[in-house]
Amino acid sequence: MGTTGNSAQPLVGESTSEQLDAGSGGRPTVRVGLLGCGNVGAALARLLLTDSKRIAERTGLQLELARVAVRSAAKERDVPGVEPLITTDAVAVVNDPSIDVVVEVLGGISPARDLVLQALTSGKPVVSANKELLANHGGELWDAASAAGVDLLFEASVAGGIPLIRALRESLAGERIHRVMGIVNGTTNYILTRMTVAGASYQQALAEAQGLGYAERDPTADVEGYDAAAKAAILANVAFGAKVVAGDVYREGISRITAQDIAAAGRLGFVIKLLAVVEASADGALAVRVHPAMVPEDHPLATVRDSFNAVFIEGYAVGQLMLLGRGAGGPPTASAVLGDLVDAAHNLTVKGAARRLELRHMPLQPIDDLRCAYYLSLFVADRPGVLAAIAGVLGQHRVSVRSMEQDAPEPEVGAQGDGPPEVGQELQAHLVFVTHRAYERDVQACLRELHQIDAVRRIGGLVRVVGA
Amino acid sequence: MGTTGNSAQPLVGESTSEQLDAGSGGRPTVRVGLLGCGNVGAALARLLLTDSKRIAERTGLQLELARVAVRSAAKERDVPGVEPLITTDAVAVVNDPSIDVVVEVLGGISPARDLVLQALTSGKPVVSANKELLANHGGELWDAASAAGVDLLFEASVAGGIPLIRALRESLAGERIHRVMGIVNGTTNYILTRMTVAGASYQQALAEAQGLGYAERDPTADVEGYDAAAKAAILANVAFGAKVVAGDVYREGISRITAQDIAAAGRLGFVIKLLAVVEASADGALAVRVHPAMVPEDHPLATVRDSFNAVFIEGYAVGQLMLLGRGAGGPPTASAVLGDLVDAAHNLTVKGAARRLELRHMPLQPIDDLRCAYYLSLFVADRPGVLAAIAGVLGQHRVSVRSMEQDAPEPEVGAQGDGPPEVGQELQAHLVFVTHRAYERDVQACLRELHQIDAVRRIGGLVRVVGA
Repeated sequence: MGTTGNSAQPLVGESTSEQLDAGSGGRPTVRVGLLGCGNVGAALARLLLTDSKRIAERTGLQLELARVAVRSAAKERDVPGVEPLITTDAVAVVNDPSIDVVVEVLGGISPARDLVLQALTSGKPVVSANKELLANHGGELWDAASAAGVDLLFEASVAGGIPLIRALRESLAGERIHRVMGIVNGTTNYILTRMTVAGASYQQALAEAQGLGYAERDPTADVEGYDAAAKAAILANVAFGAKVVAGDVYREGISRITAQDIAAAGRLGFVIKLLAVVEASADGALAVRVHPAMVPEDHPLATVRDSFNAVFIEGYAVGQLMLLGRGAGGPPTASAVLGDLVDAAHNLTVKGAARRLELRHMPLQPIDDLRCAYYLSLFVADRPGVLAAIAGVLGQHRVSVRSMEQDAPEPEVGAQGDGPPEVGQELQAHLVFVTHRAYERDVQACLRELHQIDAVRRIGGLVRVVGA
Repeated sequence: MGTTGNSAQPLVGESTSEQLDAGSGGRPTVRVGLLGCGNVGAALARLLLTDSKRIAERTGLQLELARVAVRSAAKERDVPGVEPLITTDAVAVVNDPSIDVVVEVLGGISPARDLVLQALTSGKPVVSANKELLANHGGELWDAASAAGVDLLFEASVAGGIPLIRALRESLAGERIHRVMGIVNGTTNYILTRMTVAGASYQQALAEAQGLGYAERDPTADVEGYDAAAKAAILANVAFGAKVVAGDVYREGISRITAQDIAAAGRLGFVIKLLAVVEASADGALAVRVHPAMVPEDHPLATVRDSFNAVFIEGYAVGQLMLLGRGAGGPPTASAVLGDLVDAAHNLTVKGAARRLELRHMPLQPIDDLRCAYYLSLFVADRPGVLAAIAGVLGQHRVSVRSMEQDAPEPEVGAQGDGPPEVGQELQAHLVFVTHRAYERDVQACLRELHQIDAVRRIGGLVRVVGA
């Protein structure tokens, strides 16, 4: 293993370190098969092709990019030296006996899943940046890696260049973690930052993000929280060893957050962020959810701007910890892949060094059981008795109000004009409540009941308060 | 190795994984010898004695606290179950053949150095939280660890609970790092935060920090930057593989920073922080320094408050990265030690898995060669022509001014009273300059020359601008 033309097939289920050849300078050469050459793949190829001498000096490992599997060989790639390595046969790359480590940056489930499984079962360590694959099929893949005694590393799958997975798997391996909260989607953080800093509407900020290439033309995966939910599942795997997949994650996106919500949050001393939250509850269940959250403005997560990602970790001994950096983009993500690659290559030279990830079933907390403070925004007819009716509903459901704020009444939509409201025209008031800690089920029951009250024109939104 | 009463002496220079015994549940038991039981040692002992079952479930490793060496056996310790393990014979703990891993949290050079060397040369991995030891004798210790093929891990030596060393050594092992800047001393960050947030004077803020136990009665090591300089040396070791010791680090403390400097910085959009900076310069030299710095208020480091630590890393591919957390205190530091302990224990079960740290000589940049923007504070006689004289000196030395600000003139010190200045009494003006990027040697030449100008009463201070 390790030299071109050496066709010794690695033994399934066994580390093959003895076969690693010493390269130049007595350093073992590790041959890398790369699956995918998009943003991340191209950035990684560039690093490996131009920087391998320096990497060898720093790490003692000679990383050699051996083959690169792509969908279309015709596409031009701005990576000097990569052309001779290109192939469209990904299966051949995985099965090439001269290839020691497989890097998968294809994205998506198919064909990535089969290729990764094939690599692992044939005893090759895999480095993957594929959150969708790991969040849906992680259990099966980690089992395959354990059975083969090889590494499956995935630092780049959550929060790009931030060395988060290693921190959770290794540095905090012995720590009793209470909660992990992350801004793990740069697109939505950019949109919310623009709404906060520039007072933009959601639609304006989204259009701006699309113009800058931060958001896709169909932004659903980002703005509705699907991307963050996949990452939340991986965080639950790694931080709590819990068997959780993307579909288990409670999920709300940011598309219903208005400039008014952002402004009201600001007046109350909060910033609105889309958070992935994984949290051990008192009864032993695990809460895993993605939703917009009101974060106190002096909380470290509140200061995370633009397309930056950050993950805030709370543990018994370590206290509070935050890791911040670039969550996406070719070079930062490739940097994380490279870190994993160095690790996998190092472990290849040492029999049995791969770390396992064993997941166990944990009961998941239904969202109804969540207990936190809530921000509620209501549009109501500006008449006497309305506030009393609303307060009555909240009280009946044991939801107690911490603060209430009323915007200046405006004419109801549909009756707007340039002049002052006409005589007899009903005005609409915007009420903002922040509750004390309450159960989600009680708050939702309130909202259902408030819907029935004639004077309540519209329920603007509900945002959970986190970190206060 | 691994069971009480088993006296097989580990072979010098060889990993002894084959001798690890399987403990309960088939998990290997790793016996830990702890040197020191102060804040950090006691917190670690508590974790190991109360939480080992959970740690075993998460990591697959049975960590057993075997012996604890202390200076005074009489001292009472609030750690249930630790009494039977206490001894005053640290050498015996290191030499005890049943002990697999040594944790050193004694602090100071002697006897820590001899004990750590003895452990390493007899083939035992060592986890140390001792920045002073590592910053002064790291090279010798890492060489001993490499020769013996065992781990020397030291996550807790810089920035307490923040998983920084692992990020630099492993996740970023292949990364081309440009610069590492850290708030690595919680005491000074607390003092500067109080000066910024509450407008306190340096003396008031120091007294407050002492009252809270954040600062020692003799605060020199913290406020004059000695503690941060030791950590800067370790950062240079780890981030750049450079042979640097504490004494190589250019060092300035915060004791000359005034409330006036802090206020002027605030008006200019900056926050003053004590930073440890390690930076590759264009000519291949490494700059390693500790000094107060003006950080733009929207820089992530500017938001790091109170006694928190944070390290900001800039790399070619990864871009910008920041890790924030508790830099001191028993439990956070013990959490970092525990992470290392899990790593060392894991590597013990795998022959040859320990990672080496090889340091090489790198030229160090003299402070004179630094090129950055500067904040200068001057107290001058309020007379015509003074500003022109100062501007002339700056210009002669190629220091160009970006902005200048003048406080309202005040009576000179010694002539102060409650009433308005007397007729004929000279007023003193406070001038604040921010320069464009200039060479330190030129700025220092300016200051020497300005000292000679009669109208320049006093040079208030010089603060380097970083991250702008």
